[in-house]
Amino acid sequence: MQAFLPPTSYEYATVQKVTAGHGITSATDVLAAEEPLEIRVGYGPTDAREHRTLAITMRTPGHDFELAAGFLLTEGIIRSRQELNGVLYCPDVTKEEERENVVRAELATSVPVDLPRLERHFYTSSSCGVCGKTSIDAVHASSCPVLPTDGPYLAASIIHELPERQRAAQEVFEQTGGLHAAALFSPTGELRLLREDVGRHNALDKAIGAALLAEQLPLHDTVLLVSGRASFELVQKAAVAGIPVLAAVGAPSSLAVQAAHNFGMTLLGFVRQQRYNIYSHPWRIKSEMNL
Amino acid sequence: MQAFLPPTSYEYATVQKVTAGHGITSATDVLAAEEPLEIRVGYGPTDAREHRTLAITMRTPGHDFELAAGFLLTEGIIRSRQELNGVLYCPDVTKEEERENVVRAELATSVPVDLPRLERHFYTSSSCGVCGKTSIDAVHASSCPVLPTDGPYLAASIIHELPERQRAAQEVFEQTGGLHAAALFSPTGELRLLREDVGRHNALDKAIGAALLAEQLPLHDTVLLVSGRASFELVQKAAVAGIPVLAAVGAPSSLAVQAAHNFGMTLLGFVRQQRYNIYSHPWRIKSEMNL
Repeated sequence: MQAFLPPTSYEYATVQKVTAGHGITSATDVLAAEEPLEIRVGYGPTDAREHRTLAITMRTPGHDFELAAGFLLTEGIIRSRQELNGVLYCPDVTKEEERENVVRAELATSVPVDLPRLERHFYTSSSCGVCGKTSIDAVHASSCPVLPTDGPYLAASIIHELPERQRAAQEVFEQTGGLHAAALFSPTGELRLLREDVGRHNALDKAIGAALLAEQLPLHDTVLLVSGRASFELVQKAAVAGIPVLAAVGAPSSLAVQAAHNFGMTLLGFVRQQRYNIYSHPWRIKSEMNL
Repeated sequence: MQAFLPPTSYEYATVQKVTAGHGITSATDVLAAEEPLEIRVGYGPTDAREHRTLAITMRTPGHDFELAAGFLLTEGIIRSRQELNGVLYCPDVTKEEERENVVRAELATSVPVDLPRLERHFYTSSSCGVCGKTSIDAVHASSCPVLPTDGPYLAASIIHELPERQRAAQEVFEQTGGLHAAALFSPTGELRLLREDVGRHNALDKAIGAALLAEQLPLHDTVLLVSGRASFELVQKAAVAGIPVLAAVGAPSSLAVQAAHNFGMTLLGFVRQQRYNIYSHPWRIKSEMNL
C-alpha cells in the first residue's frame, strides 16, 4: 500500500479556535496544501510539434505525474500506458516557485492532440452534448472499455469495512480534515492503493494514474471507494479505468446513477455507519448465504 | 427567504438498502438531479457578433439564470448588473431534451468577450499563473472589489447557529443528502438567501447571481456559509461579490487561507458541533463582552 505524501502536501497555520462556552484560544492547525498544476502535452524534444497546455487544475502537490497520467487517460487523450512515453517537471519553466507546478507529458508520436476537440472537451467538463443522455452516449461512443459481466462478486458485509480501512490509511486527512480520498480495494476488501487531494476528481485521477503507470489497467478486479459524493464525472472516470464497483461515502446524483446503470457498473452510496444503498447492478453484491 | 426548487431538482430511484445484520431490502430513494448546463454569451439578436459557448457545467436544474449571471460575474466576464442585459433559455436549441440545458446571456454591447483570454481563464480554473501566489495576484489585479475594513462585526456565538439555520432551509438536501449549499446571512445570523447544487461552485454562483440580479451587490454586509470545504476558488468568488466573511462547514485549503488573508476576508472553517476555527482577519469576530 503506497500512500506517501511529501511535506508539500500540507502547511501549518496559526488559527483562533472558538468553542461554545469556552471562548477563543490561539492554536496551530494543519492545512491541506492547494496549488495549481499545469499539464502540458508534447512529443519529446526532437519533435517539431509545439507543446500545448491542456489543463490547469488546483491540486494538492504530490503524485503529480500520476495525476497527469490519470487525467490524460480519464479525459480520453490517451487510451493506454503505451501511448504515454513519460511525464516530467517541465524543464523550461524559469520561475523557481512555478517549477514543480508544471508537468509535461510526452505522448507517443501516433497520439493525435486535436486542440479544437480538446477545448470542447474541457468546456464540457468531460461531457459532450448538453443533456445527460447525450453525455452518457458520448462516453459510451468514445474510449470507454466494457466492464466485466461475470463479476467480481463481493460479500455484502465487506463493504461496511471499507470506509474505516480507507480512513486508517489517510495520512493527511487525519491531520487536516481537508482532503478527498480515492482508494482501490480488492473484492475481498484489501486496500491496494490510496490517493488524496483537495479535489475529488484529482484524487481519483491520481489513483487511476498510479495504476496506469504500473500497467495494472483495466482495473476489472477492483472496488473503488471515494470519500465524497458520486457525480457523473467520477462514474465516467472509473468506467474508463475499467472499475466495475464504485462506492461513495456520500450521495450519488441522478446522472451518476443513470450512467452507472448504462455502463454496467455497480454503484453504492451512503457507505457509512454500517449501512449503504445499491443504486445499480446489485448482482455483484452477494449476501453471505449465497457466497 | 427564497429557496424554491423545481421538480427537476430531484428524481426518484429504486435502490437496495443494505444494513449490517439486517440484510438487503428494496426501497425508493430520492436523488439530487445532475444535468449539463451550457452557458452562451451574445449581444442580442440584432448584433452581428456570434454567440459563443463560454462553459458547460454539470449542475442541478433550477435557478439557471442566476447560475449563469453569477458565473459571469465571479469569472470576471461582467463587473456589474448593468453589463448584463438578460439571460434566457436559448431559443435556437431544437432538441426538446436540451432546451432547458442551454442558456444565453445577453451582454451590454460594451462588454468585450475576449475568447483567447477566456480559454486561458477556463483552463486555469479561474486562476492565472501556475503558483498560488500568482493566482492570488491575478485576482487582485483584475476585478476584485475591495472588502470593507470597518466591519461587519459578528458575535462569536452567532456563528454556531448558522449550520442549523442553513440545514433547516435546505429543502432538497433533506431528501437527497446530495446537495451542496451556499447561504447568505446577515451579520446577526438572519438567513437571507440559500441556493443548492450538486456542485459547490454552482451553489455559490447561484447565490451570488441571485444577489446580482436583485442589484444587491457588493454584499458587504453579508456572511456566507458553504456546506463543504473552502477552496481558493470559493474564496475568490466570494471576494468578487464583496463578501467579507466566509464560513465553511469543512476545512479550508492552504491557498484559501492565503487568499483570504490577502483579500482582507475573514475565513472560518470546521463550523460545526459548537466550534470553529478562524483562519484570517479575526478582528470581525467579537466575543460577547466586547459587543
